[in-house]
Amino acid sequence: MSEKVYIFGHKNPDTDSICSSLVEEILDKKNGWKDVEAKRLGKINKETQYVLDYLGIEPPELLEKVEENQEVLLVDHNDFAESVEGIEKAKILGVTDHHKIGNFRTVEPLYYTAKPYGCTCTIFYEEFKRLGHKIEKKEAVLMLSAIISDTLLLKSPTTTEHDRVALEELSKIANIDVNTYGLEMLKAGTDLSDFSEKELINLDAKLKITDNFKYIVAQVNAVSIDDVLKRKEKLEEEILKSIKENELDMFVLLITDILNSNSEAIVLGNRSDVAEKAFGKNLENNRMFLEGVVSRKKQVVPVIEKNI
Amino acid sequence: MSEKVYIFGHKNPDTDSICSSLVEEILDKKNGWKDVEAKRLGKINKETQYVLDYLGIEPPELLEKVEENQEVLLVDHNDFAESVEGIEKAKILGVTDHHKIGNFRTVEPLYYTAKPYGCTCTIFYEEFKRLGHKIEKKEAVLMLSAIISDTLLLKSPTTTEHDRVALEELSKIANIDVNTYGLEMLKAGTDLSDFSEKELINLDAKLKITDNFKYIVAQVNAVSIDDVLKRKEKLEEEILKSIKENELDMFVLLITDILNSNSEAIVLGNRSDVAEKAFGKNLENNRMFLEGVVSRKKQVVPVIEKNI
Repeated sequence: MSEKVYIFGHKNPDTDSICSSLVEEILDKKNGWKDVEAKRLGKINKETQYVLDYLGIEPPELLEKVEENQEVLLVDHNDFAESVEGIEKAKILGVTDHHKIGNFRTVEPLYYTAKPYGCTCTIFYEEFKRLGHKIEKKEAVLMLSAIISDTLLLKSPTTTEHDRVALEELSKIANIDVNTYGLEMLKAGTDLSDFSEKELINLDAKLKITDNFKYIVAQVNAVSIDDVLKRKEKLEEEILKSIKENELDMFVLLITDILNSNSEAIVLGNRSDVAEKAFGKNLENNRMFLEGVVSRKKQVVPVIEKNI
Repeated sequence: MSEKVYIFGHKNPDTDSICSSLVEEILDKKNGWKDVEAKRLGKINKETQYVLDYLGIEPPELLEKVEENQEVLLVDHNDFAESVEGIEKAKILGVTDHHKIGNFRTVEPLYYTAKPYGCTCTIFYEEFKRLGHKIEKKEAVLMLSAIISDTLLLKSPTTTEHDRVALEELSKIANIDVNTYGLEMLKAGTDLSDFSEKELINLDAKLKITDNFKYIVAQVNAVSIDDVLKRKEKLEEEILKSIKENELDMFVLLITDILNSNSEAIVLGNRSDVAEKAFGKNLENNRMFLEGVVSRKKQVVPVIEKNI
């Protein structure tokens, strides 16, 4: 047994990964399990920073890697490619997640709770209810922020009735106007001015390996797609570097218009034909417009993986 | 969407796989989900037949393979190598299981409930409680039989407090003396006289593929290990055939003494050294005695996989 059990979400953490880690720590402690500690696998993005500032709390500590037999609880991911360095030799006690399962395995039985919801925090919300724990304002803000982030204010097609119910209940507990708070939070995340092109393509990037096909789908949220496209040339330079370094077959950068719920994709790589086949469109200047596409998980990764 | 959603456990079904399928069908229907149907992936063994006869019910229908996009719910397994033919192209809506996770993946998010309990039916028992559904005598017998089978009357080291509580509660509902019923049921499963050696080694065999190592661990329960060992020569012939046909690195046959909770292992294959390393013993005449070992899942597979 390790001294502490670490709880963490995926690399390039988003709001759901950070909030779910913090919420699971709170929940486990309410259940009498004291030696748990939320961690993070990367830099806090600006959207998540907005949430932490709103609550006046510190982010979890950075975790660079885990030692053999370190006990861990995963949230918001299961793919080892998205997890901490050393995960293959860690002891995974449990997973709470809302993604498809792949590239995941354990040596022993474990707790695994996945539900096809829009957000991991919606699963935790239901756990609080099931166990009869009172939800404090802090937990409510953490969970509702994650739901707003993952569902883009309930506009993403990943949104389920469970997410809607949870968000409504949590906004009452937190006494927050969801639309005002949510738009401010999402907009905070679209401030990309501080980031280099290299940082931009890594901010929310998921490396996927399936059927010997290795690719990355990165996503940035924007209020104006055109503003991001002004940096297209340099973005492409960085994407090409990433393809070389990571030996990728394809790199997809989704620039998502959070107000109008569309995305522009920049696609590079020897196998960019996979994206063309997946969306039934030809790339022009390495670009394609994806009307109504906002969800990597629901609208991008599955269609790509069906067309490899 | 497929017309019906099929529910099934693993190939070479044991009592937990069959009872869990039947119980999930009942539970889903209580939850208002009508188009679900329990299936089985192989012949009913004598232990399970004892349970079905006790209740006077028919086994689920045999399922040979599934078509592309068939909607399915898995119970008591997740490893595709143990599942139905065609599983890679099926649409897996959910999994309820108590095994480690490996060789499993989906294209889309799903419901996945795993708990490190002794038996899948213990998870279903807790689902009945959580949802506030009344447990009828039939469900109680199905669930308690699976718990007795998987935990060898609570003597296996896989047994958890959850299994103990569930078995006690269920025995009250079913008005059954667990020790009398359980021993009769387990003994029914040890009547191996009808089976050829080929059938014996396939009765409860699990094919595992991990890190390019391919092996089978088969298990038979017995009241007398010596009785089974009288057939050792012919058993070994069949094991060698299986190794050739399946291109195995190793085949382990566990003969488990259900009264004294020990096992004798017959190990063959080019890499039988893995079993020697795993248990720190030399094979003599392809045999080794494993004191206190009754659980393939807890005491055999993990130690093998740590020594590949």
